[in-house]
Amino acid sequence: MSKNKAYLHCIERQKAQSLWRQKLQASKYFDEFLVETMSAAKSLGRITASLIKAKQSVPHYNGSAMDGIAVWAADTFGALETLPKQLNLLSPGQLFRAGGCYLVDTGDLIPEGTNAVIMIEDVHIKDNKAEIVAAAAPWQHVRIIGEDIVANEMVVSEHKLITPEDIAAMLAAGIEEVLVIKKPRVAIIPTGDELVASSHELKPGAILDVNSHMLAAAIESWGGEANCSAIIKDQRAAIKEAVVSSLAVCDMVIVNAGTSAGTDDYTAEVLGELGEVIAHGIAIKPGKPVVLAICQGKPVIGLPGYPVSAMLTAELFVRDVLIARQRLPGIKAKLVETTLVKQVASAIGVEEFIRVSVGNVQGKMVCVPQGRGAGMLSSLTKAQGVISIDAASAGLNAGAVVTTTLLRQVEPLDTVLAIGSHDLSLDLLGVYLRRARNNISLFCANVGSMGGIMAVRSNETHIAGIHLLDAGTGEYNLSFVQKYLAGTNWELVHLAMRQQGLMVKPGNAKNIKGISDLTRQDVRFINRQRGSGTRMLLDYELTKAAIDSFSIAGYEKEVGTHMAVAASVLAGAADVGMGVKAAALALGLEFIPVAEEQYDLLLNFAADDERRELVLAILKSPEFQNEVEALGGYDLKRAGEILIGGRA
Amino acid sequence: MSKNKAYLHCIERQKAQSLWRQKLQASKYFDEFLVETMSAAKSLGRITASLIKAKQSVPHYNGSAMDGIAVWAADTFGALETLPKQLNLLSPGQLFRAGGCYLVDTGDLIPEGTNAVIMIEDVHIKDNKAEIVAAAAPWQHVRIIGEDIVANEMVVSEHKLITPEDIAAMLAAGIEEVLVIKKPRVAIIPTGDELVASSHELKPGAILDVNSHMLAAAIESWGGEANCSAIIKDQRAAIKEAVVSSLAVCDMVIVNAGTSAGTDDYTAEVLGELGEVIAHGIAIKPGKPVVLAICQGKPVIGLPGYPVSAMLTAELFVRDVLIARQRLPGIKAKLVETTLVKQVASAIGVEEFIRVSVGNVQGKMVCVPQGRGAGMLSSLTKAQGVISIDAASAGLNAGAVVTTTLLRQVEPLDTVLAIGSHDLSLDLLGVYLRRARNNISLFCANVGSMGGIMAVRSNETHIAGIHLLDAGTGEYNLSFVQKYLAGTNWELVHLAMRQQGLMVKPGNAKNIKGISDLTRQDVRFINRQRGSGTRMLLDYELTKAAIDSFSIAGYEKEVGTHMAVAASVLAGAADVGMGVKAAALALGLEFIPVAEEQYDLLLNFAADDERRELVLAILKSPEFQNEVEALGGYDLKRAGEILIGGRA
Repeated sequence: MSKNKAYLHCIERQKAQSLWRQKLQASKYFDEFLVETMSAAKSLGRITASLIKAKQSVPHYNGSAMDGIAVWAADTFGALETLPKQLNLLSPGQLFRAGGCYLVDTGDLIPEGTNAVIMIEDVHIKDNKAEIVAAAAPWQHVRIIGEDIVANEMVVSEHKLITPEDIAAMLAAGIEEVLVIKKPRVAIIPTGDELVASSHELKPGAILDVNSHMLAAAIESWGGEANCSAIIKDQRAAIKEAVVSSLAVCDMVIVNAGTSAGTDDYTAEVLGELGEVIAHGIAIKPGKPVVLAICQGKPVIGLPGYPVSAMLTAELFVRDVLIARQRLPGIKAKLVETTLVKQVASAIGVEEFIRVSVGNVQGKMVCVPQGRGAGMLSSLTKAQGVISIDAASAGLNAGAVVTTTLLRQVEPLDTVLAIGSHDLSLDLLGVYLRRARNNISLFCANVGSMGGIMAVRSNETHIAGIHLLDAGTGEYNLSFVQKYLAGTNWELVHLAMRQQGLMVKPGNAKNIKGISDLTRQDVRFINRQRGSGTRMLLDYELTKAAIDSFSIAGYEKEVGTHMAVAASVLAGAADVGMGVKAAALALGLEFIPVAEEQYDLLLNFAADDERRELVLAILKSPEFQNEVEALGGYDLKRAGEILIGGRA
Repeated sequence: MSKNKAYLHCIERQKAQSLWRQKLQASKYFDEFLVETMSAAKSLGRITASLIKAKQSVPHYNGSAMDGIAVWAADTFGALETLPKQLNLLSPGQLFRAGGCYLVDTGDLIPEGTNAVIMIEDVHIKDNKAEIVAAAAPWQHVRIIGEDIVANEMVVSEHKLITPEDIAAMLAAGIEEVLVIKKPRVAIIPTGDELVASSHELKPGAILDVNSHMLAAAIESWGGEANCSAIIKDQRAAIKEAVVSSLAVCDMVIVNAGTSAGTDDYTAEVLGELGEVIAHGIAIKPGKPVVLAICQGKPVIGLPGYPVSAMLTAELFVRDVLIARQRLPGIKAKLVETTLVKQVASAIGVEEFIRVSVGNVQGKMVCVPQGRGAGMLSSLTKAQGVISIDAASAGLNAGAVVTTTLLRQVEPLDTVLAIGSHDLSLDLLGVYLRRARNNISLFCANVGSMGGIMAVRSNETHIAGIHLLDAGTGEYNLSFVQKYLAGTNWELVHLAMRQQGLMVKPGNAKNIKGISDLTRQDVRFINRQRGSGTRMLLDYELTKAAIDSFSIAGYEKEVGTHMAVAASVLAGAADVGMGVKAAALALGLEFIPVAEEQYDLLLNFAADDERRELVLAILKSPEFQNEVEALGGYDLKRAGEILIGGRA
């Protein structure tokens, strides 16, 4: 399998980064850059390629800084309150003569012969005479040429990011065109027999090329200009030709992917023929199959194909090179110490990067790991930070304090965490929270109802959705929270009554009518995970019907959400699963009602946290209630009712 | 003078902001927004107008997560190391039969009839048979439909800033077009008889319209789209017409300026006729003449004409409205506690905003106020932060600890402060520092040589340029630093020998030959400020020549830099001044040498601050030395030599 031997010997990330940087420096890549001339007025956000000197002074003439009269200062000497002096008012254009003065407005040119201005408030004008009661110092209230910027002086430094203020200063200083650093052009070459360019061509086994668009946007956000080529098949010659022609017109080339050691993976080989391969295979996860090369003095990088891997490795190896090439100040990562809410395992020997959500729960900063598959786009879109686990570590325990690198402009204080049982209404709650306050984003992690109670107990979530049936009392939630939660920081609030039932493919080919059908030989079930409310409801119903779970094929196959159950049924991975009606309707499945259950929210906000009030107000708003009920199978009559605890 | 009575009664800034916000809310301005549909692939940085739901699941088929064989799990039950099982290898397309299997690559569709994948590493293939030594669990190594994103599930929330990762997720989920919030259109209407649109039309008394470009760039940086109109004369009807036609096509209108209470200031009147004026005149400096209005339910704002005032008031009143209109998360100002290096006076009754530079000097965060004129563009381009002085305060003393609001992405730790005597070579030093490290920016404040020594003494600058002649010894600098500086944190490093002399206009009409001519009746002098090295050199030369300074016309008129002296001479504000040759050459003046003087730098970096090494390396580099010498009148033979102190 391993055609490329180098790939067997993964090198450390730090080593790869510094080697890559050194080699690029040695090839003078950072010493040269392309420049272009552009209109100064349109140059916002660009980088000056050289020091910019003023072409003219600002102000460009001696002007009045006040509304008043322009005088020859010496003529005013001796004027006092007790001994006013009178000056002769001259008309504009009239030649100056001793003892004369002119009316001037702010910004007016100081007439020839005058050298000071007296404020109009201090002048008494009558019959073409201006009476003054104080002497003027020479050049008082005069803005002289170059008071702000002197011609030939520096206006904007070299390699500076141009701001709106810089634009104003340049224009005022007579600079209409400015030499800026050209945006580096980065070629993106998507490769792969399985890739298609649009979802219309999508069929099973085909993969939509989303990476090109993601990488192009990332490059744009780092100041570069992406140059996406058409999809190249897994053919050596075609890949080589694409790289060669890209090298001719671009500053950097990305080949995506073909970077593994499989039989159809030609990237490393091709780059080795065109230049020097610096590294092939880096000891990170995700993202191991990276190829770093230098061809014709330019960086060429092979990125892995899975989106999460492609994005992470672009951040690790493409971003800094692009930024240095443009002379942009390096980006300083924002770091925050957080408490990890659940254990994460990690392989020894690779540095592992895990996307996380970050929130401040009653003063404790917590981080919640996302799904970790390299193909999990959802982990990319929902993450607010990333943690890395050292190659020497086998993982981190829940409760460990870890340094989280925040992504972009994230303000973690404003993330509302909802860890517990998931319900589709929580996504809508997130939307309503954001409508109320643009700074708020809601992050959901699905760990089931019991997981949610535990997360509240250890102060690791703001909200936990729960629907736990007490088999003894037939009551929901109350007995569980009373058993597991102490103190008064939390409160239980009703959200909805919702219908739970069995979901089957349209047509119900296997004619499933209720839970007694689950034991049939020809029926494959898909289950929810232990600790989830749906699982407990199922077990309760099975006990009531005296059904042994061992007799159900697929009882042991667990997934984490209602939608995942529905998707498994739709995909044919199972014939039937249990979940809420809304999930079945969302995917067009048939729904066989089993029970109505109570879905409540545990709220866990600090006393002065306005977000608690916001959540309660949203739950009670008819707009929200109607929108949730429209999903199907919901009754929100009592939504927002505080069931226990609370500060109301 | 005061036609608009309201203007007499300035209101507080906070009150104006909240009134403005309330009134806009009352007119439902923030409830509505325009939307547009655009290509998801191109939507980087836009805001989603609604919750985005997946159109298809990701993955969209059940695929292999490994290279290996696809099997029916039940066929594999019972396989053990000691009791291997053999499966029949079927060709692609061949119908599945019990005990069969297919070779699959990662990403391949799982063939009909199979429900699990066994890694190729665990399979022994021979003669169309696949031997396995362990059972496969159903659905192992299979990525099932919707494992990442389930159709109809939320992919991106409402009112979210679209990232590269969001683009990937949307495309993968079958979303090719996305509904986003339309960029708010902001009309900018420049008004004023004195305004001209290009520097070619510039003549004394005319002002180049730089504000329109500055405001347009600022609006762009806040997510809006600027719509600049042509310059409108100070005529009521014309201004009114421009506002009316802008209201028809824009979300917000800026009139700049005509906002004062002068006879030609119509903005407040016009806006009062078209809608409601919320405030006219705000108790801030700079920026008092602001008009806040609502016309046809839209915000219309009159901004003052001076660039510093226009920018400050745009930041105070335009930015937040634009951001809220787009549903962008509010910008949280970065605050830092700093020590003020010099006293600033402030008028009681107005809140004063002062732009500052910020730097970390040996662990002490200091802030250096910029020039404060409302017309000083240079204070805008050089500032890294802004401080505000309360309306109740008469000012702040040097040494006061003040909260500085940082502007944009400033990283103050990396600003090198150069406070002292200015020399043109310092701008070049800044350029070279930035070339070495893109994070470094050099900020110069000109307070003269003695001011520089004092700034080092109180640990408020990294670098101080000094050129102080000891009249007793004829030696430069050494005796002064030994007298005023204790400790060993600083060191004195030589920069250049430079020529000082008299500057006169080309042609030298008054035939000035040396300092003895300064006492002539027909000669007007312009001086440097007390404490500056040039002033001390002049005084030394006057003493040597037994000239009484009282006999020099203009001796009392002081400016702060060599270039300001040169500019005053060029402008005709004086006939002659003293300064370095480079300044004279820069403005094309004639230069009459008086003396060669020694210009040194005091360096004041922490022991582990790599910037000290950088500065020394630059001073010694032939490239820097040649570039400074090319300015004229410099000799850098001994540049970089450590004269006293230091850690070398």
